[in-house]
Amino acid sequence: MTNALEPFDVVDLIHTKRDGGSLNSAQINWLVDAYTRGYVAEEQMAAMAMAIFLNGMERDEVRDLTLAMIASGERMDFSLLSKPTADKHSTGGVGDKITLPLAPLVASFGVAVPQLSGRGLGHTGGTLDKLESIPGWQANIGNERMRQQLEDVGAVICAAGSGLAPADGKLYSLRDITGTVESIPLIASSIMSKKIAEGTSALVLDVKFGSGAFLKDIAQSRELARTMVALGKDAGVATTALLTNMNVPLGRAIGNANEVRESVEVLAGGGPSDVVELTVALAREMLALAGRPDADVPAALADGRAMDIWRAMISAQGGDPDAALPVARATHVVTAPRSGVLVQQDALPFGIAAWRLGAGRARKQDPVQHSAGIDLHAKPGDTVTAGQPLFTLNADDAARFERALEALDGAYRIGDPGEQVSDGGPLIADRVD
Amino acid sequence: MTNALEPFDVVDLIHTKRDGGSLNSAQINWLVDAYTRGYVAEEQMAAMAMAIFLNGMERDEVRDLTLAMIASGERMDFSLLSKPTADKHSTGGVGDKITLPLAPLVASFGVAVPQLSGRGLGHTGGTLDKLESIPGWQANIGNERMRQQLEDVGAVICAAGSGLAPADGKLYSLRDITGTVESIPLIASSIMSKKIAEGTSALVLDVKFGSGAFLKDIAQSRELARTMVALGKDAGVATTALLTNMNVPLGRAIGNANEVRESVEVLAGGGPSDVVELTVALAREMLALAGRPDADVPAALADGRAMDIWRAMISAQGGDPDAALPVARATHVVTAPRSGVLVQQDALPFGIAAWRLGAGRARKQDPVQHSAGIDLHAKPGDTVTAGQPLFTLNADDAARFERALEALDGAYRIGDPGEQVSDGGPLIADRVD
Repeated sequence: MTNALEPFDVVDLIHTKRDGGSLNSAQINWLVDAYTRGYVAEEQMAAMAMAIFLNGMERDEVRDLTLAMIASGERMDFSLLSKPTADKHSTGGVGDKITLPLAPLVASFGVAVPQLSGRGLGHTGGTLDKLESIPGWQANIGNERMRQQLEDVGAVICAAGSGLAPADGKLYSLRDITGTVESIPLIASSIMSKKIAEGTSALVLDVKFGSGAFLKDIAQSRELARTMVALGKDAGVATTALLTNMNVPLGRAIGNANEVRESVEVLAGGGPSDVVELTVALAREMLALAGRPDADVPAALADGRAMDIWRAMISAQGGDPDAALPVARATHVVTAPRSGVLVQQDALPFGIAAWRLGAGRARKQDPVQHSAGIDLHAKPGDTVTAGQPLFTLNADDAARFERALEALDGAYRIGDPGEQVSDGGPLIADRVD
Repeated sequence: MTNALEPFDVVDLIHTKRDGGSLNSAQINWLVDAYTRGYVAEEQMAAMAMAIFLNGMERDEVRDLTLAMIASGERMDFSLLSKPTADKHSTGGVGDKITLPLAPLVASFGVAVPQLSGRGLGHTGGTLDKLESIPGWQANIGNERMRQQLEDVGAVICAAGSGLAPADGKLYSLRDITGTVESIPLIASSIMSKKIAEGTSALVLDVKFGSGAFLKDIAQSRELARTMVALGKDAGVATTALLTNMNVPLGRAIGNANEVRESVEVLAGGGPSDVVELTVALAREMLALAGRPDADVPAALADGRAMDIWRAMISAQGGDPDAALPVARATHVVTAPRSGVLVQQDALPFGIAAWRLGAGRARKQDPVQHSAGIDLHAKPGDTVTAGQPLFTLNADDAARFERALEALDGAYRIGDPGEQVSDGGPLIADRVD
């Protein structure tokens, strides 16, 4: 029942993938184009996505899918900038505010960071949601202002325009409601199509594994990292990846405004050691890819150079870096039921609790509450005394505490001194290039 | 992201099926209900259908799905009729007009046949499309007239009302465009939900295998037959199945009006031997289930009793059993290129060719051409002489012959005397009860 004007019948292509076959370049190009213009219906693409989820894709198919999604929209080009560019992408986690200190830190070495970011959905936060806690700050600045800010300030964190890989935007929304998110070919092509279309010449991927990550298993995260690094190299983008541990929340703040505060602490030379460690490691990767392998990264945090760029970057997008950040109307402190050592602090339930407090959204159109979230007063391995505060829940509405506390039931545990801490091992588990 | 008013989150249910798990009764009932009222979106059900296609369903899940689809609409009840009821369902094939002679034949023994039928889609014809070649005949008669006709005449072939298993109607349309048709759990629940909701007390299934059937492989057809027989028995409907060969077109007519003509030949005591054989075998199954195991079925064809019911049945629905049937404006005769034995006549290409001639439809809303189709002048095993007509193509528009002939390229072959005939074996391969 092929339409005479279309070279393929989508049901034939679904059958091919359903029955374990491979799609060729012409078929994938047509599929993505026909889906973007609405000839292939959402329900047909949903069936295809589930067939891809269950039967996988060959490496050539993932490359063709990525290229087709790039071709569905505009492609940015920063080659006329006076400096090299480097970008970072994280697969998302709990308390992951690394982009905030990282972008100005890398820019302080003369490498431009064009960081197109997204909003949070479900238990993982979104970089734009966090930055919007800063009074006046604007996520949407347009391509021309972005280019100018890269030249003048060196760092931009802003919303991706809808013109970039629109096929990916449409497919991502579909996957979100059809149970087809956690597929390596679909994740890899989604991330890399946007990043390649962004026009960066170097890219570092922070691929997370563990309870708070989309992929729980390090072997799957490694496969995702390898797939994405190969896609980047095929497209001429220098790409490396770190495999990082997301079994425990990153830092001491989970939410929006509190994560901005913590980021500013790091830029001021302080902050939690895990956030500093990951920020520095990612900055070194980005700088090495951009031709600055010997940059003294910690010095730029210690001497205020990175903070200067942060202030300029926030101001350039209408924000006031000195403004007070929103504070929650209601708080609820959870204290240690006994003395001992905090041996467990599980990322996923803390992420879900912060989401239920209002820090995240259930549907794309929902607003987030910038003051909502969780402040952690102890981290795994810390000695605690009975009655001492373990963490504080923040919300605008005290009625939200009950369901957040339900999520946290069993999420943390105080053990005896000397007991093994259950944190899933080192923060940076491996590097893929 | 569960809606507070809904007991389940459809994405959770998709994940369960995607990851190889089973859904329980409450989950399946909710899924079907939520899909029927539009809360579960088409794209979500498409992903679920593909997950079911690839990961299968347990027997309990198929039963729950069938019952949930029945519960989505009205349920008919013929228990107040003065006679027993028996119904037949065929999984569809090429030249399959068996319902036409079968319903009046069974009714001639005092067993009521409430045959709710469908229209054709793709290469398999639809019983209603065939009967609509008869001037005046009406497919839509409503439940009350149907009941009265069953009492007065004994046989009804009519369109199912939209109130019967509406969830199945919606899901069937979705499967048709999402490449999820050929799934045993989905086929079995679709057929059986309609047949059980129809309220028949006995049901005989004609489950086809071979090139012209939806399931090519007899092992798959056997599994489908077993699944459906079990579903029928669980629901209190006496059910048996015949596994029948659809590698070769059934009879000598493929189309609409020509299939009515052939059916009338059978009712007059003649007709092609394969059509007679299958009609009689299915009639015996239906009559045995309805308490008439010793009925002399061939006698009712020979002595005109079945023909009398046919005429009454057609008249009761506004048709004129004596009216001339439509004849095609254009014909094209294909002759034997050599002398020998017809050793191959492949059902699928003949079905596709008839469809391209206008006998079937590509989209639900398309009309069919009642005079279009193919008349076969030789059947596998027949001796033919060079130049003798093998088959005639009939169409209202001679421009349709070219693509029909393309479909028939390689579909038939004349071999040497003594050569093995490639017809896939006996017509009735097995019985399942």
